[in-house]
Amino acid sequence: MKLLRVGAAGAERPALLDADGTLRDLSGLVPDIDGGLLADDAALGRVRGAAAAGELPVLDGTGLRIGPPLGRIGKVVCIGLNYHDHARETGAEPPAEPVVFLKAADTVVGPNDTVLVPRRSTRTDWEVELAVVVGRTARYLESAEAGLACVAGYAVAHDVSEREFQIERGGTWDKGKNCETFNPLGPWLVTADEVPDPQRLALRLWVNGELKQNGTTADQIFPVGEVVRYVSQFMTLYPGDVINTGTPAGVAMGQPEPKPYLRAGDVVEAEVEGLGRQRQELKAA
Amino acid sequence: MKLLRVGAAGAERPALLDADGTLRDLSGLVPDIDGGLLADDAALGRVRGAAAAGELPVLDGTGLRIGPPLGRIGKVVCIGLNYHDHARETGAEPPAEPVVFLKAADTVVGPNDTVLVPRRSTRTDWEVELAVVVGRTARYLESAEAGLACVAGYAVAHDVSEREFQIERGGTWDKGKNCETFNPLGPWLVTADEVPDPQRLALRLWVNGELKQNGTTADQIFPVGEVVRYVSQFMTLYPGDVINTGTPAGVAMGQPEPKPYLRAGDVVEAEVEGLGRQRQELKAA
Repeated sequence: MKLLRVGAAGAERPALLDADGTLRDLSGLVPDIDGGLLADDAALGRVRGAAAAGELPVLDGTGLRIGPPLGRIGKVVCIGLNYHDHARETGAEPPAEPVVFLKAADTVVGPNDTVLVPRRSTRTDWEVELAVVVGRTARYLESAEAGLACVAGYAVAHDVSEREFQIERGGTWDKGKNCETFNPLGPWLVTADEVPDPQRLALRLWVNGELKQNGTTADQIFPVGEVVRYVSQFMTLYPGDVINTGTPAGVAMGQPEPKPYLRAGDVVEAEVEGLGRQRQELKAA
Repeated sequence: MKLLRVGAAGAERPALLDADGTLRDLSGLVPDIDGGLLADDAALGRVRGAAAAGELPVLDGTGLRIGPPLGRIGKVVCIGLNYHDHARETGAEPPAEPVVFLKAADTVVGPNDTVLVPRRSTRTDWEVELAVVVGRTARYLESAEAGLACVAGYAVAHDVSEREFQIERGGTWDKGKNCETFNPLGPWLVTADEVPDPQRLALRLWVNGELKQNGTTADQIFPVGEVVRYVSQFMTLYPGDVINTGTPAGVAMGQPEPKPYLRAGDVVEAEVEGLGRQRQELKAA
């Protein structure tokens, strides 16, 4: 299933996108798409059943905003340097174990919302990523298989990053990862049953129509199940948590000088195979 | 005012602790103590008025849990190495600008809840801190005074830290800062009007009755207003966000070998002047 939140801006409702491209309103069936729904097999079953029966009214597609696919996001855990080709372009050795950092849930916006270039930013950069949405509590898992079993679904994430704030302002990366609007998510959450192999997904990102990133999750150093297992040794993952699993090569930081960092007016489009496409216009904060 | 959440475990209600030590139930006046209440002068005024009139029933004190003082916590922003004496004990230079990292809101527990020593932990450490609770949105603030004006109140935080996970497992500090139960908060939020100078507060922490940390916020490298101003350049702070402003000297990491890291069975008590006292028993995860 493709689960999303769509409607008038600020009043998005849980919805389902059918195989035939029809949007169906789920708000009578589930109060929202959140961690509670994802952890509830009976509620998910009702969603599937209702959708199959085609009983729900079609939403009008005009003037609607697609919000992040989760009404309430727990924490956003990010994996750094998780693609061989991206580690190479940054000059880093492939990490011996996953590099983990956090983004605040309040950085998450809808897939087509405006992204703000922070004030005093000179190095705002793009990163298309496969986002994993957690559906079962993960705590001290013992295998990558157990990690995969905790995944409710997948979505496209754009892990926007300010490189000077991230790398040159002392301490951890968090200053360059948590600026307002820095985590577009969606357009929808595709349930895990429809993604038979998360390690065979193409990822692409364009800036102003020019292809910049063109990778595949086959190049991930630590695959999805292993990432979930690993993270669960250090923190407990709850339904509604999101993991951004890293970005492939092709970010601005990895280009020759002058590096083409993002500016107000630029348009970024990003997609992951089978998970839909995002489009953001950049504006000054 | 001292605002807290207290009641049967899992059903804590918003409450006020009177000057005479009486607990008053606020649940008829406010749905919860959260960012919405803190940003709402009218609601806070009703709380003050009702408390002064003494109209609310006294809660029975037996068998109650004190939860974190906020029913819904936004993000938890932490400042590292923010005391001269703590920077010295870790062998670090005082940072030129604040070191910022995040803790997930789901690490926050009540002030007297159990703290879990993570599996495979060998270096679980303590850190008593002054926590700042944000009451007004802070975005690109221009002065430390403007930063202070965004503070709703203060609380005691225990920024529990696993040093091997934090420092020796690659990448950022987040692996050692986000383990389950690693952020006791409370017992209450003291509104800013009752903390005339946040840079003159004593902080103390004991392990098994032995005084380990005995500092003062006067030793902070970056004072509270400056911390809020600085953080607001990189991320937007919202009502209900929490900032842990750093810890003074005396952590286990700063002691001679063998360093006295925490083990199951240990008891930590922590207090900040005027903000109450916490007590946690350590157990194995």
